[in-house]
Amino acid sequence: MNAIGVDVGGTKIAAGVVTPEGEVLAEARYPTATTTKERLLSSIARAVVEVRDGFEVGGVCLAVPGSILAVENKVIDSPNLHAIEGVPLKGEIEERTGLQVTVENDANAAAWGEFRFGAGSEIDHLVFLTLGTGVGGGVISHGVLLRGGQGAGGELGHVTIQATGPRCNCGNRGCLEALASGTAIERCAREVANEKPDSALGRLAVERKVLGEDVTELAREGEEAAITVLEEAGTWLGIGIAGFVNIFNPQVVAVGGGVAKAGDLILGSARREVRLRARSPARDLVEVKEATLGPESGVLGAATLARDASGEYVLGL
Amino acid sequence: MNAIGVDVGGTKIAAGVVTPEGEVLAEARYPTATTTKERLLSSIARAVVEVRDGFEVGGVCLAVPGSILAVENKVIDSPNLHAIEGVPLKGEIEERTGLQVTVENDANAAAWGEFRFGAGSEIDHLVFLTLGTGVGGGVISHGVLLRGGQGAGGELGHVTIQATGPRCNCGNRGCLEALASGTAIERCAREVANEKPDSALGRLAVERKVLGEDVTELAREGEEAAITVLEEAGTWLGIGIAGFVNIFNPQVVAVGGGVAKAGDLILGSARREVRLRARSPARDLVEVKEATLGPESGVLGAATLARDASGEYVLGL
Repeated sequence: MNAIGVDVGGTKIAAGVVTPEGEVLAEARYPTATTTKERLLSSIARAVVEVRDGFEVGGVCLAVPGSILAVENKVIDSPNLHAIEGVPLKGEIEERTGLQVTVENDANAAAWGEFRFGAGSEIDHLVFLTLGTGVGGGVISHGVLLRGGQGAGGELGHVTIQATGPRCNCGNRGCLEALASGTAIERCAREVANEKPDSALGRLAVERKVLGEDVTELAREGEEAAITVLEEAGTWLGIGIAGFVNIFNPQVVAVGGGVAKAGDLILGSARREVRLRARSPARDLVEVKEATLGPESGVLGAATLARDASGEYVLGL
Repeated sequence: MNAIGVDVGGTKIAAGVVTPEGEVLAEARYPTATTTKERLLSSIARAVVEVRDGFEVGGVCLAVPGSILAVENKVIDSPNLHAIEGVPLKGEIEERTGLQVTVENDANAAAWGEFRFGAGSEIDHLVFLTLGTGVGGGVISHGVLLRGGQGAGGELGHVTIQATGPRCNCGNRGCLEALASGTAIERCAREVANEKPDSALGRLAVERKVLGEDVTELAREGEEAAITVLEEAGTWLGIGIAGFVNIFNPQVVAVGGGVAKAGDLILGSARREVRLRARSPARDLVEVKEATLGPESGVLGAATLARDASGEYVLGL
């Protein structure tokens, strides 16, 4: 039967009805209402009910940002969507939609989407990273989604790679997220713009806030300062990935999210660092590449992780 | 049926006949002959043949140091036992003993031993670290030993935690091994001894090379300089463990090896760092404790990973 995957983001909710073959039959997008818990729940329920219209559906999975406590189907800690913290999502959305609901971390769901239908569809060992405002991660090892004891596993963005490094959103220093996220790229771009005020990057920074996509665009045009910024982020990314290669010995590391649009401008230096830092034979096996599904991965992965009333996966695994 | 586990170390080979319940019926220990590949193979084969004497045995597993290429049953890279690199262990030892042979990384085997019979026997998610000359690791996630695509997974000692940190044996900088191994403790002890020549540590360093166990002993006696050394190593260890907690969301992190004998002198500061750096709910679940099997874990774990002629695990999983 079909299942509904819902990707609950900090700014928008995407819901899709997905077939067992990974085809999206219908999609709905709404802004995420974050002012109160009640409004947040309403906006999620509305997305489910509207997208479901006319389809037979076996279950729903909500892919949500932050650290999950699976046994309670709750988010414990969500820096980008505080309104969702502690909300009993499963019970509330089941009541409002009449469908079985499961809850997963959004990056884990996206990783599972890439594993089933994208960059990891031919393999058993996938590390997935999504680089946006933050850095999310998900791991499939021996064909199994690594959830850990509470469903909170796979937080690859919050692994220390430079203990004395810059502050991270999570309160620590030197996490991968603090050094290779879109936010880190913007911070680095400000620094480089200050050092090189005559560069295109420097001139843009005088006019307005430089965004990650500005850096990518300038780098594509050959602007040295912007290329430096992406290479620096790519090097940190590679240091993190090298660790994951030594830990997981994966066949593929797939990198998605807005920052990955920079492609080889960021992945080139990441690959270089992986070759330097990861051990043989793992470094010889791994392919570091762009994720293939784009923002769809969350909805697709979540739908594949939806369960029915008997607790079985609706789309099968 | 029984199985033989063999722990092939840089200086000695330990072999044991193990029952399905984890009882060691017989044990043999020999020095590791490292001058030639032939002598190394002979010393391994001799340990197997002698320990087997009189027992019915279904298979053998060799726990060997270094990065494994499982499909070829070979060690690719072994900083502490170069003689073993590239040797076709499976075929050679099968020929010399007439028994089925499998090959595993030593720390993965020890992790599996702790999972089956030690610190992880009641749980599904275990991270195991062994701190000696180097730092080895093994992970059991969802009850499955994390081997990765080639059997090279679980190299937790070679994860970068301070990219600009000291050189590691593997050629990189700032690996967990470079900061929290016995070797790192000895380096740190030399530095502190230089800074504090009047401390007991400083006085000892004038007489002879300070070993890891000297530091532990002095710290037990209350010597401030030695306590500082172990706290520094424990802090780095905790930074590494915090990353593993965020990645794996394990129930237990078990720390074994010679350095772990320092107990809370090193694990105390490690736990403090985990509370600071790991995320909720994972940091609330995890227990960081000493491994319980001691040096037996390698033999026990390896035996449990031995396979018979049909490719089935001899002791069952």
